[in-house]
Amino acid sequence: MTKLFADKLRKVEPYVPGEQSKNKNIIKLNANENPYPPSPKAMEAIKNITDLNKYPNSSASDLVEALEKYYGVEKGEVFVGNGSDDVIALCYLAFFNSQKPILFPDITYSFYPVWCGLFNVPYKTKAVTKDFLIDPKDYYEENGGVILPNPNAPTGISEGKDFIKDILDHNKDSIVIIDEAYVDFGGYSSVELIKEYDNLVVTQTFSKSRSLAGLRIGTAIANKDLISLLNAVKNCYNSYTLDSVAIAAGKAAVEDDTYFKDCLKKVINTRERFSKDLKALGFTVYPSHSNFVFATRDDIKAKDLFEALKKDDIFIRYFNLPRIDNHLRITIGTDEEMDILTEHIKKYIKNM
Amino acid sequence: MTKLFADKLRKVEPYVPGEQSKNKNIIKLNANENPYPPSPKAMEAIKNITDLNKYPNSSASDLVEALEKYYGVEKGEVFVGNGSDDVIALCYLAFFNSQKPILFPDITYSFYPVWCGLFNVPYKTKAVTKDFLIDPKDYYEENGGVILPNPNAPTGISEGKDFIKDILDHNKDSIVIIDEAYVDFGGYSSVELIKEYDNLVVTQTFSKSRSLAGLRIGTAIANKDLISLLNAVKNCYNSYTLDSVAIAAGKAAVEDDTYFKDCLKKVINTRERFSKDLKALGFTVYPSHSNFVFATRDDIKAKDLFEALKKDDIFIRYFNLPRIDNHLRITIGTDEEMDILTEHIKKYIKNM
Repeated sequence: MTKLFADKLRKVEPYVPGEQSKNKNIIKLNANENPYPPSPKAMEAIKNITDLNKYPNSSASDLVEALEKYYGVEKGEVFVGNGSDDVIALCYLAFFNSQKPILFPDITYSFYPVWCGLFNVPYKTKAVTKDFLIDPKDYYEENGGVILPNPNAPTGISEGKDFIKDILDHNKDSIVIIDEAYVDFGGYSSVELIKEYDNLVVTQTFSKSRSLAGLRIGTAIANKDLISLLNAVKNCYNSYTLDSVAIAAGKAAVEDDTYFKDCLKKVINTRERFSKDLKALGFTVYPSHSNFVFATRDDIKAKDLFEALKKDDIFIRYFNLPRIDNHLRITIGTDEEMDILTEHIKKYIKNM
Repeated sequence: MTKLFADKLRKVEPYVPGEQSKNKNIIKLNANENPYPPSPKAMEAIKNITDLNKYPNSSASDLVEALEKYYGVEKGEVFVGNGSDDVIALCYLAFFNSQKPILFPDITYSFYPVWCGLFNVPYKTKAVTKDFLIDPKDYYEENGGVILPNPNAPTGISEGKDFIKDILDHNKDSIVIIDEAYVDFGGYSSVELIKEYDNLVVTQTFSKSRSLAGLRIGTAIANKDLISLLNAVKNCYNSYTLDSVAIAAGKAAVEDDTYFKDCLKKVINTRERFSKDLKALGFTVYPSHSNFVFATRDDIKAKDLFEALKKDDIFIRYFNLPRIDNHLRITIGTDEEMDILTEHIKKYIKNM
């Protein structure tokens, strides 16, 4: 741009989400969406919505109260936002305000450096091991904050309580955000640690385990001081981030625990079955506690397989990034979808 | 807070929205909400929603296309966000990046300085005249950007094409945001000027004229380069700000122009009727092109009247701010609601 005002415009490098297609007949395994619909009670809440001419409750209190009960935490320890991306962006604004770099792994959710760019937060990445494991010692050094997904993405690998406590114990003067987007699929949740650690913020989302990607609901759990600051920062950005439909449907989804657990069980069963199938086809498949698997086979070019599947209307995720450019991230769909995918991969291998 | 990490936390001064009450029987005239429900077609779209387990279309293209058609602009000239607060916050991030102060009136939407605080944008306010008019000459000086509501809030006063062109002509090296939250109630819209001025960004909202405050939809209209940057910044913050329900209902609302115009007419008629009633009671009422009126009476303490009405479950807006602390901002409700309010004011005056 050669405009007169060009020097006042921001230079940015946006995050690139999984591809979308208007073709409804594709098998979409590239955005870690849940293959099952949301709780029927959530859908019922949407149909019964009224008063849309009025602003939503600005603290989304119906949803927040349902979540406080669900997590077994106290009033004031839960924050909700417009998807966990909104929640994490607000956490960056609220908690990462020193000149010191924040730390996160080199292989992780690719949005972390994007927020650093947007908000001018310095950062350093820490290389995961060759097996894609995070070494807690890498996070002992002085920093402006720490953010880690657990389970990690796009690897699906989960760490336990001791690992998280180790990081927290070595970062008493920084905020540590544990991004638990995928935790419901079998990972360890550190929500229980917020009482013990005043520097811990746990974030979760309704987009994966609760089948509500279309409604944009994310949550943060932490001690009252941090949640209170997060609310203040939210109120400096947008007074009403969550709409009335999301508040009502989110509440109904949280309260329908039977449906929730049932969906989780189905996804986990399919993941285990599909992982076995992929291994039988010669792939290395990392132990996943999420709703996707991360896989590679030395003699298959990941990018080529990804492109071949796309031609057949099967969308999985390929990252053209250092260290993982021969790996594929595959979301767990229904058994039927995974069987179709397995057949396509078999055919691809046969024709190599 | 005496925490070890206290120096990494942000210090903020949040915006305070109009009070909310869980009591459904109040007369709520404090948040400039529309008294009429959204288009029945929007409600129908909500009832028919499916696929909430999938992410929304990240560019909200169904809604964007409906708006391009409605505004009569080209593809790529419309941006949508999670309410106009989200849209304006993203505009600050995208367009206000110099060390020079941005300019806005001293009496205006009180969120403008809050975003400056959040994003460290320097600013200068320009005093409106004693009749609350904006003097365009105040905006001739070098600056980092300009933001003006037209109609202005909380005064409701609207300016015309020459005024806007004057500001734009004197700010060719800055982005000028015209915040048209209330324009549909009879103000002049500068959307037609985006072809002529590449430094103009117009923002609007579905929260007032389209009766969809509960769904959080805001929009920006500008030339393609600016909209493209706004999308890039949005994609650095949150890939999916608008949920699937808002996209579908927003589209249906835009397409139901008859219902829209009919509601506008009703609100405007009530505003004129109520303004006359208030004047008859001795109030100075500023000429409003919005869905609220701004009024004062020298011998009535605005705060006392505000408190008295609240006791009677009638909520209007009082700002404890310099220059306007003896004024009241009253949202236009239904004729019936305004008549009840008028009766209460009459009674208050009688008992003075």
